[in-house]
Amino acid sequence: MSQEDKQRITVEIYNRKYHIVGEESERHMQLVADLVDQKMNEIHEVNKQLDTSSLAVLTAVNTMNDYLKLKEDYATLLGSIKKKED
Amino acid sequence: MSQEDKQRITVEIYNRKYHIVGEESERHMQLVADLVDQKMNEIHEVNKQLDTSSLAVLTAVNTMNDYLKLKEDYATLLGSIKKKED
Repeated sequence: MSQEDKQRITVEIYNRKYHIVGEESERHMQLVADLVDQKMNEIHEVNKQLDTSSLAVLTAVNTMNDYLKLKEDYATLLGSIKKKED
Repeated sequence: MSQEDKQRITVEIYNRKYHIVGEESERHMQLVADLVDQKMNEIHEVNKQLDTSSLAVLTAVNTMNDYLKLKEDYATLLGSIKKKED
């Protein structure tokens, strides 16, 4: 995909606007932004003393953790398919 | 897992220390922190004007995007298995 085909949208996350660029649809990018905003608000609810920067880092940590767990699940599923095919 | 079984570790992400609590091993949590730190540094390299807070939010956006894409791949893979079993 060339630079010209990329979507550029403005989203609001935790009361601040961000310009994001991606190869996905505007709808997909909006969903991503909404999920990050939601997660930041959830973490804020249980850690009200955290500043925005720490809140955002912990949101990234939380999401990365979910990503790695899903990656393991994906590898396990792929492994079970290959085993059946042997 | 009870509160007592949770791991508590201190990690360094983007030159700042964070105390994180999780159900996973210390090694797994350190890996998560290292990946977030790495992604923040990568985004910083191409957007040097961004403050830490925006950098962390965009890191969370980036990771959430990867997570959703992997979730779709997982669903597709699961769908293909079910189709074979029918």
